[in-house]
Amino acid sequence: MENTPPSNPEKYPFLSNIHSPDDLKKFKPEELQGVADDCRSYLIDVISANGGHFGSSLGVVEMTVAMHYVYRTPHDKIVWDVGHQAYIHKMLTGRKDLMHTNRKINGLAGFPKRSESPHDAFGAGHASTSISAAAGLALARDLSGSNEKIIAIIGDGSMTGGMAFEAMNHLGDTKSDVLVVLNDNQMAIAPSTGGLKNYLVNISLNKTYNKVRKFIWDSISLLHNDLGETAKHAVHKIEDGIKAALTPGAFFEALGFRYFGPIDGHDTEKLVKAFREMRELPHPKLLHIITTKGKGFKPAEDNQSKWHASSGGFDIMTGESLKSTGKTPPPKYQDVFGHALCEIARKDHRVVGITAAMPGGTSLDLFQNSYPNRFFDVGIAEQHAVTFAAGMAAQGFKPFCAIYSTFLQRGYDQLIHDVALQKLPVVFAIDRAGLVGEDGPTHHGSFDLSFLNPVPDMVIMAPKDEQELRDMLYTASVHEEGPVAIRYPRGTGTGTALEKGFNTIDIGKGEIVRDGSSLAILSIGTMVGMSLEASQLLEQDDIDALVANMRFLKPLDTALVNAVAERYDTIVVVEENSSIGGLGSTVNDHLRKEGLTNSVLALGLPDRFITHGSMKDLYRMLELDGPGIRKRIKAFYKGIDTETSESSQSRMRTDRLA
Amino acid sequence: MENTPPSNPEKYPFLSNIHSPDDLKKFKPEELQGVADDCRSYLIDVISANGGHFGSSLGVVEMTVAMHYVYRTPHDKIVWDVGHQAYIHKMLTGRKDLMHTNRKINGLAGFPKRSESPHDAFGAGHASTSISAAAGLALARDLSGSNEKIIAIIGDGSMTGGMAFEAMNHLGDTKSDVLVVLNDNQMAIAPSTGGLKNYLVNISLNKTYNKVRKFIWDSISLLHNDLGETAKHAVHKIEDGIKAALTPGAFFEALGFRYFGPIDGHDTEKLVKAFREMRELPHPKLLHIITTKGKGFKPAEDNQSKWHASSGGFDIMTGESLKSTGKTPPPKYQDVFGHALCEIARKDHRVVGITAAMPGGTSLDLFQNSYPNRFFDVGIAEQHAVTFAAGMAAQGFKPFCAIYSTFLQRGYDQLIHDVALQKLPVVFAIDRAGLVGEDGPTHHGSFDLSFLNPVPDMVIMAPKDEQELRDMLYTASVHEEGPVAIRYPRGTGTGTALEKGFNTIDIGKGEIVRDGSSLAILSIGTMVGMSLEASQLLEQDDIDALVANMRFLKPLDTALVNAVAERYDTIVVVEENSSIGGLGSTVNDHLRKEGLTNSVLALGLPDRFITHGSMKDLYRMLELDGPGIRKRIKAFYKGIDTETSESSQSRMRTDRLA
Repeated sequence: MENTPPSNPEKYPFLSNIHSPDDLKKFKPEELQGVADDCRSYLIDVISANGGHFGSSLGVVEMTVAMHYVYRTPHDKIVWDVGHQAYIHKMLTGRKDLMHTNRKINGLAGFPKRSESPHDAFGAGHASTSISAAAGLALARDLSGSNEKIIAIIGDGSMTGGMAFEAMNHLGDTKSDVLVVLNDNQMAIAPSTGGLKNYLVNISLNKTYNKVRKFIWDSISLLHNDLGETAKHAVHKIEDGIKAALTPGAFFEALGFRYFGPIDGHDTEKLVKAFREMRELPHPKLLHIITTKGKGFKPAEDNQSKWHASSGGFDIMTGESLKSTGKTPPPKYQDVFGHALCEIARKDHRVVGITAAMPGGTSLDLFQNSYPNRFFDVGIAEQHAVTFAAGMAAQGFKPFCAIYSTFLQRGYDQLIHDVALQKLPVVFAIDRAGLVGEDGPTHHGSFDLSFLNPVPDMVIMAPKDEQELRDMLYTASVHEEGPVAIRYPRGTGTGTALEKGFNTIDIGKGEIVRDGSSLAILSIGTMVGMSLEASQLLEQDDIDALVANMRFLKPLDTALVNAVAERYDTIVVVEENSSIGGLGSTVNDHLRKEGLTNSVLALGLPDRFITHGSMKDLYRMLELDGPGIRKRIKAFYKGIDTETSESSQSRMRTDRLA
Repeated sequence: MENTPPSNPEKYPFLSNIHSPDDLKKFKPEELQGVADDCRSYLIDVISANGGHFGSSLGVVEMTVAMHYVYRTPHDKIVWDVGHQAYIHKMLTGRKDLMHTNRKINGLAGFPKRSESPHDAFGAGHASTSISAAAGLALARDLSGSNEKIIAIIGDGSMTGGMAFEAMNHLGDTKSDVLVVLNDNQMAIAPSTGGLKNYLVNISLNKTYNKVRKFIWDSISLLHNDLGETAKHAVHKIEDGIKAALTPGAFFEALGFRYFGPIDGHDTEKLVKAFREMRELPHPKLLHIITTKGKGFKPAEDNQSKWHASSGGFDIMTGESLKSTGKTPPPKYQDVFGHALCEIARKDHRVVGITAAMPGGTSLDLFQNSYPNRFFDVGIAEQHAVTFAAGMAAQGFKPFCAIYSTFLQRGYDQLIHDVALQKLPVVFAIDRAGLVGEDGPTHHGSFDLSFLNPVPDMVIMAPKDEQELRDMLYTASVHEEGPVAIRYPRGTGTGTALEKGFNTIDIGKGEIVRDGSSLAILSIGTMVGMSLEASQLLEQDDIDALVANMRFLKPLDTALVNAVAERYDTIVVVEENSSIGGLGSTVNDHLRKEGLTNSVLALGLPDRFITHGSMKDLYRMLELDGPGIRKRIKAFYKGIDTETSESSQSRMRTDRLA
């Protein structure tokens, strides 16, 4: 499906005239709804053809238009939290003609990105970072003596992340001029969780309460007139206290913010008025805006979780996915995880499931449906999720913590300090391990093998396919000696047949999945399949490769490595993780300990941040698909020094080859 | 100085009769102050002779006595946050006769520890974990259908940590029975920071406000009588809203907690009454208790930061440290850092200093004194600290973030996602890297080299002495291309002469500090000195070792490694970091890439959590002091397979030695 270009004045009478925020400022306030309508139509057009995050950007159309109308970027700094709601911001800041390249390789990023535009004041991707970044920008401004305005836009879901609180607590104690916009749609990806949510609902629904508040507030002001100076001072203090206590935003006022709102996030003129007022006020303040996720696109308004993002586009009339082909694809690893956990939980009543606001993404919602009492969504709160799991394990339960690899970085200290140090049997189901495709560098799970490897008493494994994921989950459920991490990728499995029931896997035992006479490939997780593909291609090069599925990074199957090292001169290690500190390093360390001098080619993610793009494009670029692995093994084995940009790091000195 | 044993009934008429919490329950409420007085005297006795954390335990004497009087551990679960205030708890739960072994090797831990006593429901060490752990214990209890009470004790400082907020937000949305005790002494280690602090001060000081609140509250209750049912319902809702808003704990009520307090934390009978009331109330609730850190010991009350802990004991009358010997010891790395930063900041106005509630511990207070406007204490909030630094760097500043190695684990995601991914030039001054001694496994900085190593674009260095720390700090201040990490140890330096001014160190360049003909030792940080000591001892074994100071883990000095590999068959790598993923692995990876087959002995921290004890004891136990390193090198070089418990992991197969 082709987009109507945003330059088409018939379809987009307003947007077609906007090439920068300056153009936006030429409109009258009452014309801004027209701009907003254009932006919304164009967004729906673009996403329907290309996919992308969706609901959250639809929800902030009016807010974004009003903000760019009142504030002046890049002088003023707008910091988006998470950032997938920033599509309208991108359209208005000179990137509307590139929206169709969104999330494609070499195209626009799905998130704000400093190197993409000076209007992107701070990059985003993970939740709850915006107030911290804004605080940094603001206190730096104060030191410089410049006058730019700093605005952070954060959703109610992201507000449950601890670092948002840390930032407010710090910022509220300064007098720095920052506006925090609370974009309250009562959703993160799933409906948001926690005490604060109920509190925000109360604020926005309780109109009677708001009236009473106004009455008391006015009465206090009247009281204020005929008093002596000392009494006045005393009353003033009381007044401050009572006013603060009576404000619906007492929570935020407690942290030192002035609270304003709630206001309707889809009324452009009201928003302009509010932002103008905010712009003139010094000090930290919070503006509470109520929005509807998916606003203006019926299917997205009706099912907000589903329409958080569209991965491959959809039919603009019906909302039906363009991807559906009729054929049943293999199940997703996530669904295999969810179903397997239900099966394990049926027999093992100690099993509980924990997610940090990702029940749908991790498919832990399958477990939630079957075992609602044993399911815990703790909000966007990975730190708490991990220690909460440790607490449950300390009571004899068997918690399965389903967390994306990149988000587990948030719970790293808790994993070490509260779980591993106490040898508590928490299972980390590490989802989105390895590359994730279009979400790019903020979301790739590139580091988990490396950062988990040094943690004592961890068992670390990765399945080669869905069946092995089932068996690993079961194996983890009966492992009582300490924590277990199982990393698996985003998306569809290999299509392997799923067995009934479970097999236990011996801890620390790999398997040989293909025999060969020339060299040995030691692979793990997703790279087992890729290595098998490479080994077939290598037959054309007269290279007959053994392929081992190592299964475990820790404990390493040293017997298997030793046996392979005895039989082959050349060992290739392949993993979908940083090439530093994962399986490659572990095999090298082991061989060196054993005094073994085999030639080793270690393939993994290169030591740089990997861009966004389709999985296929990324694998090809990194030479981690079958053909790429084949090419690099061939070059290594034949002693040909092929200097490609991606494989140079793994090249060898040819003069050392036997 | 000898302690009076706690069994002495003349000195401790109450404590001498208490061998378990059951014994405590035999006293009458009015006798509990006597118990508290005994505990306090004994604590002062023990710490004056042995050192240890101090002020925080003195502050919670009455609270702990009252808590153990009302609750019944180990059936009920008490979770201490941080845990260095748990000495009284240890005394009352069967460990009073072991208090003199506190923090010594094989002695009691300085923190609660599950393996030490069934009364320690959950281990501690890092801040802000207690509510998460308590939530886990409580929701597990609810699933089990058992009836134990769960109590978390958390200081106002720890309350600024984001995970405490995450946990309250989650717990407040459940109906689970948990008591959170807010131990409010307005101090963490330094005076606590943030908006929440001001809020708590307001609550506890504003008596007038409390009176007004009572008046309004009562008036609303009166209003309540003669109304119809619908109106009653409406008024009831308004009443709830206003009551919540008028509560001094509106902040906590917003998160779904019932708030009680503030009450005097040194009035034993009031505390008993309060805990009894709390015990009967269901649901999440918070009891706000005001305490004085250092209570009952004048020097500690007067200077609370200083008396947070005593490292080597003190004179009980004067408070004077027992350690002072008259000789001036070498300066601490911390002080060298603080002074150097001031010097750098004098010329470079972009330099700012950031700490997460550790101005004294990191000696960033030296910078604070000279540059108060450029100093930022963000509270116990490492996540925020890191992204806040990124924000300042994005505005062109040069932030130095001084964080302990073990606490940087809290900011790992932010370091990757907000700093490194955006190539922002933030400098991480990683304090307490390597072993820390008496604080033990929760505080050892064992993992930073490993977890930083895979992060793209990081420069990672460690100085061999104080002068090199100065030069590295300066070098970092002029490095504009991305983030820099400098790790250095706790405590006194080597005593090297400090030069005036600074030298720039070439990024990625090590140096040879001792030549030798037998083998090469590649060492980094603290282990350069130890390796030099070992090399001198090795002369007696006719082994002439070259010693290199690698300076950089990343980028590795590959030229130096190659040169050494060419010249020597045997390479030894020594680092004070996990032996997995640090310098040893990096050298192994590099050699393998180059096709070099040297024998490598990699020495580092073994793959297990290291216990507490004096640095000397720990180094000896781990064979990481001069004699230990010598012994292991000799065994490796001479091909003798010495299987000691500590060195077995690094052994080699003797049959492979040339």
